[in-house]
Amino acid sequence: MTGRRARDWGIPFAGVPGPLDAITDVAGVRVGHCTVVSGTRPDGSDAARTGVTAILPTPTTETEAVFAGWHNQNGNGELTGTPWIDETGLLDGPILTTNTLSVGVVRDAVVAWAARRGLLPQRWAMPVVGETWDGHLNDIRGFHVRPEHAHEAIERATGGAVPEGNVGGGTGMVCYEAKGGIGSASRVARGPSRWTVGVLVQANHGLRRQLTIAGLPVGAELPVPAAEPEEHGSILVFVATDAPLLPHQLRRLARRATMGLARSGSVSGNSSGDLFLAFSTANRGAVEGPGPRSLSALAEPEMNPLFESAVEATDEAIVNALAAAETMEGYRHHRVEALPMPRVVEILQRHGRLASPA
Amino acid sequence: MTGRRARDWGIPFAGVPGPLDAITDVAGVRVGHCTVVSGTRPDGSDAARTGVTAILPTPTTETEAVFAGWHNQNGNGELTGTPWIDETGLLDGPILTTNTLSVGVVRDAVVAWAARRGLLPQRWAMPVVGETWDGHLNDIRGFHVRPEHAHEAIERATGGAVPEGNVGGGTGMVCYEAKGGIGSASRVARGPSRWTVGVLVQANHGLRRQLTIAGLPVGAELPVPAAEPEEHGSILVFVATDAPLLPHQLRRLARRATMGLARSGSVSGNSSGDLFLAFSTANRGAVEGPGPRSLSALAEPEMNPLFESAVEATDEAIVNALAAAETMEGYRHHRVEALPMPRVVEILQRHGRLASPA
Amino acid sequence: MTGRRARDWGIPFAGVPGPLDAITDVAGVRVGHCTVVSGTRPDGSDAARTGVTAILPTPTTETEAVFAGWHNQNGNGELTGTPWIDETGLLDGPILTTNTLSVGVVRDAVVAWAARRGLLPQRWAMPVVGETWDGHLNDIRGFHVRPEHAHEAIERATGGAVPEGNVGGGTGMVCYEAKGGIGSASRVARGPSRWTVGVLVQANHGLRRQLTIAGLPVGAELPVPAAEPEEHGSILVFVATDAPLLPHQLRRLARRATMGLARSGSVSGNSSGDLFLAFSTANRGAVEGPGPRSLSALAEPEMNPLFESAVEATDEAIVNALAAAETMEGYRHHRVEALPMPRVVEILQRHGRLASPA
Amino acid sequence: MTGRRARDWGIPFAGVPGPLDAITDVAGVRVGHCTVVSGTRPDGSDAARTGVTAILPTPTTETEAVFAGWHNQNGNGELTGTPWIDETGLLDGPILTTNTLSVGVVRDAVVAWAARRGLLPQRWAMPVVGETWDGHLNDIRGFHVRPEHAHEAIERATGGAVPEGNVGGGTGMVCYEAKGGIGSASRVARGPSRWTVGVLVQANHGLRRQLTIAGLPVGAELPVPAAEPEEHGSILVFVATDAPLLPHQLRRLARRATMGLARSGSVSGNSSGDLFLAFSTANRGAVEGPGPRSLSALAEPEMNPLFESAVEATDEAIVNALAAAETMEGYRHHRVEALPMPRVVEILQRHGRLASPA
Repeated sequence: MTGRRARDWGIPFAGVPGPLDAITDVAGVRVGHCTVVSGTRPDGSDAARTGVTAILPTPTTETEAVFAGWHNQNGNGELTGTPWIDETGLLDGPILTTNTLSVGVVRDAVVAWAARRGLLPQRWAMPVVGETWDGHLNDIRGFHVRPEHAHEAIERATGGAVPEGNVGGGTGMVCYEAKGGIGSASRVARGPSRWTVGVLVQANHGLRRQLTIAGLPVGAELPVPAAEPEEHGSILVFVATDAPLLPHQLRRLARRATMGLARSGSVSGNSSGDLFLAFSTANRGAVEGPGPRSLSALAEPEMNPLFESAVEATDEAIVNALAAAETMEGYRHHRVEALPMPRVVEILQRHGRLASPA
Repeated sequence: MTGRRARDWGIPFAGVPGPLDAITDVAGVRVGHCTVVSGTRPDGSDAARTGVTAILPTPTTETEAVFAGWHNQNGNGELTGTPWIDETGLLDGPILTTNTLSVGVVRDAVVAWAARRGLLPQRWAMPVVGETWDGHLNDIRGFHVRPEHAHEAIERATGGAVPEGNVGGGTGMVCYEAKGGIGSASRVARGPSRWTVGVLVQANHGLRRQLTIAGLPVGAELPVPAAEPEEHGSILVFVATDAPLLPHQLRRLARRATMGLARSGSVSGNSSGDLFLAFSTANRGAVEGPGPRSLSALAEPEMNPLFESAVEATDEAIVNALAAAETMEGYRHHRVEALPMPRVVEILQRHGRLASPA
Repeated sequence: MTGRRARDWGIPFAGVPGPLDAITDVAGVRVGHCTVVSGTRPDGSDAARTGVTAILPTPTTETEAVFAGWHNQNGNGELTGTPWIDETGLLDGPILTTNTLSVGVVRDAVVAWAARRGLLPQRWAMPVVGETWDGHLNDIRGFHVRPEHAHEAIERATGGAVPEGNVGGGTGMVCYEAKGGIGSASRVARGPSRWTVGVLVQANHGLRRQLTIAGLPVGAELPVPAAEPEEHGSILVFVATDAPLLPHQLRRLARRATMGLARSGSVSGNSSGDLFLAFSTANRGAVEGPGPRSLSALAEPEMNPLFESAVEATDEAIVNALAAAETMEGYRHHRVEALPMPRVVEILQRHGRLASPA
Repeated sequence: MTGRRARDWGIPFAGVPGPLDAITDVAGVRVGHCTVVSGTRPDGSDAARTGVTAILPTPTTETEAVFAGWHNQNGNGELTGTPWIDETGLLDGPILTTNTLSVGVVRDAVVAWAARRGLLPQRWAMPVVGETWDGHLNDIRGFHVRPEHAHEAIERATGGAVPEGNVGGGTGMVCYEAKGGIGSASRVARGPSRWTVGVLVQANHGLRRQLTIAGLPVGAELPVPAAEPEEHGSILVFVATDAPLLPHQLRRLARRATMGLARSGSVSGNSSGDLFLAFSTANRGAVEGPGPRSLSALAEPEMNPLFESAVEATDEAIVNALAAAETMEGYRHHRVEALPMPRVVEILQRHGRLASPA
């Protein structure tokens, strides 16, 4: 079952994905994971089920600014570095994700990593680090993430297929009361320009009864014993594109992640940290530097296909996270089951919504 | 067929509606429409298909402030009075909707209406007037909306069932390339407090191919000849509740309208003015006035059922608008067909998604 | 005394002004006023002391979009068209100012003006109209502003020296409890590029005891009989520049108007509508149209001289408004005295702060 | 000279300060500093000149939420925890400040401190940590701040006079090219209610030529050799009040810090991280907790005296930071002179602006 993605199960999605159906379809974007799984105590009290994921917007080894914009859909989360993005539209280097209590260590590790490369002008001290809470499966108060995990995630970052599910920052995550984690997807935007939009999520949100796949309320048919009364999770969504967008346009794009999230059934619960960031890999070398410099930008009406792509790819990336994540046991023997994909398929089939036989 | 609402057709929605399944389920909220349909020229060049809708947050004849918050999901629209709502969280009187080119006349008409009642302290000059574009069916450059239409909408405002479809500000609207207009719905929020959340939309948005009902891509199965290449519409969503919410909490609630809109298939296209406003009828008489005054407010976690209700009711209000709106011919004989509800029902039935036989 | 501007009185300001020391130093920017003063009743109850001011960002007769950004420093005011500016950074045509109760008529008049020229694509229906309250001197409930006044302000718009004081939208305004109104100033920004920053204010804000000129608390030395206990005014600040700035950079620039306003002593009182908008005349012809189109933009650090210029010019424009405005009597014989500039000069002289003998 | 504050030098400020003229005049607010000064290498390359400052909003040893609001005046800075404040208006515990590269370690230290007390519900993982850059005097790449420094700052927090200048997070700061650091001031707001507003700044901003004290351009008369061409600093401003304000009202209050900052001459330069946060100590025990709970709140017009107080106290706190900070030598023998207060006094005297003989 491992390795099958949402589309492999016959789940229908609108739009045309890129070759990898992943954020790495946007040329130059790289993703790296460092997964931290350990624990020796018989009672599971030191069970680490956590990690770090890095998204590098450009293929350079040096840090290099790109345009970015973000959206706070529901603010029970942390995403450092956002005042600067709000102010200038600049994203200065890698984006990292981890668990809620490890934002600090990862942030300082990025700073140290940049300092080591001599990349520490003043501004470079505002790294972007996001989080979701993995304290159900992970001994989160054990602070198992160390600086070298962040460095490893950055240094392993590569193009190509993106490992999904229980990896990196997504290792211990829970989504719609099934095992969640990292998911990715992409779209080739409608229209002659064929821009690519890629999405990566760290999915840790939602109640089972809300889960919607391909528009069907599958969650209602796949109840969990001892369902949560309240949502406790969060989701980070990162949207990359090669379309030349200005900072205010990237804020617009980030805001569409809300609509992709809505397609999976979420209502952005109170304790959810639903923070979304979009960046463009275009205008490389031009977003900074002296003088009136020349930039390329789409006209606003040309954003429509990008909006559609971002919504579709966010929805699919969430289902990809669910499809990839495997049942996990962790902290104090807490156990979270993978979403039973064969039963999902069965529901879709019953409703005549399967794209192709599983 | 007239008068059948979405639920009457067997379309399934989550959650429990209030008795009227309308914004007027929130006690004290009143809605009034003034529909302007006229035209005598054979070529249809003076065909008025427009109007004004008024939402009165309280049952008083005097203006009275309530707490409010708003969200700009996509800003190709106008909603006057929002700087003051951002600043103070106060909504000082009726909300009006009309067509795009008549915002000014309606705004001044509200001012004159208030002045006539001696209700014109300085602040009272910031009325809230929203719009969507009806220039396809309506001779919008004919400026057919006059001050008395706004006054009529306000004065006719009443509780009870809300007329939907081709009425008031919604008269000439087009939604998912079918006839759109005004729609409403409500929810009794989950939980012991049973707060009510009511929604009213002026629905003028979306491409046919995007239309999703009950999670099914019905738009793809009901194509329109000469489909629009780009979305040109907009949607206004107003959310009322009797739950005691503070201004920042109402901004949170307004932001959930995006997720209800997403359920109907929209991606908030570039030229869409998707502006949402939420208000609370609680704390009457306490939101203003001297001194430290005593207010009631929910704790943040208690907002979850309200979030869910707002998402569900927005989705349903849009389908109610589509179900109620009848085929219309107007400006220069432009004609927009009603959404063929029997065919929608058929699609839902085929996919085993009908709540009850139509 | 008429015609003497702040600098003519020897009031010192930092920075180097452009040739006109006005917003029209930014090439292509035009300003037009239509002043409405009338009234025949002996009791002064129909005394009109109001008007309309138009700022045209470009020299074209056609509407043409430029990049813009705005800031809500204190939202007890109206500035229509801002959701679209927030969304896309586009300002599509003239900016108009008038009194609080005439925003609607002026808004619709701009629409009609554009329609007459065939300039009414859908988006063109979001004109930018701001206001401040002139109800002390003006029979504001008499609704004396008519559509033709707005048309006249637009059509009279011209480069060159900007009439200040009791003109156009500023006719009946009161500032620091002296006669206020329109003021303008400009700066040639520090640095090799010598960008121009121009400011126009409609100044109707502040308590006398707060008034600060050249850093000196002159208001405390020039008390008014029957001083207001609370601020009731507002200020609109428009910042123009020829520097190539992107929308997010123009928001940054608009936010500096707050700091210029602070220099004149204001604390942005609760009932003040302090709304600021900045636009760039650069990138003409490139901000729209099918793209990817090529744009020019400054790097963020290059904004420092523009920030300084905007602060300085806002401060000076306010004093220019005070210096130009003459004593006025109006509605019900209400009378507001001009700020006694000779006494201001005397105070500055006593403190050794006069730039040159008056 | 040590220990003399701005008022002791005869510098005039508007308004009436509280007994301590410090943020601790707001009952229950406590401040603690941990100053880190060390270094043994002859070349000064390991010279630590840094630290941590903690502001505790309430007198409880437990963490306890209060209402808060923040403002990003210029975003080249970090202030963690702000998405949650934006969302819910809740500040859940201590605020900490440190140098730019130590935000991570301090953040995690707050988490650990809370965990040690069993105060780690999920939400408690969003501590508020701000920074300004001290890399000129401090070996900032040496990462000298350790978790125990954060713990010490929290645990030493106390009421009473607030140590200013080269202490805590302000140790190595530079302000208007003089030695800067921590400063504080307070106001008893005008009006019958006599609310208290207290301010604490970590002042690290401004160019010498911009420095304005009591409205006089003293910076221009006190040039520095080798003046900086560009501003590189930042300022954090924290505003406390005992007035019962709701979250949206605290955002309004935070926005007034900009105007106090403007009075000292700043234009919020591009690389300045000017982040401001306001909180209210009222409604203790009521901001959270189940059920519609009862809150107290001022009416909007009652905020005017608070606005004035926040502006005045911010201005004074900055001058207090300058007055208290002593000449420091640090990293690689960089040396920053204290502002020569006797010369400032002389300038004020010459301009007849001294409140009382020094």
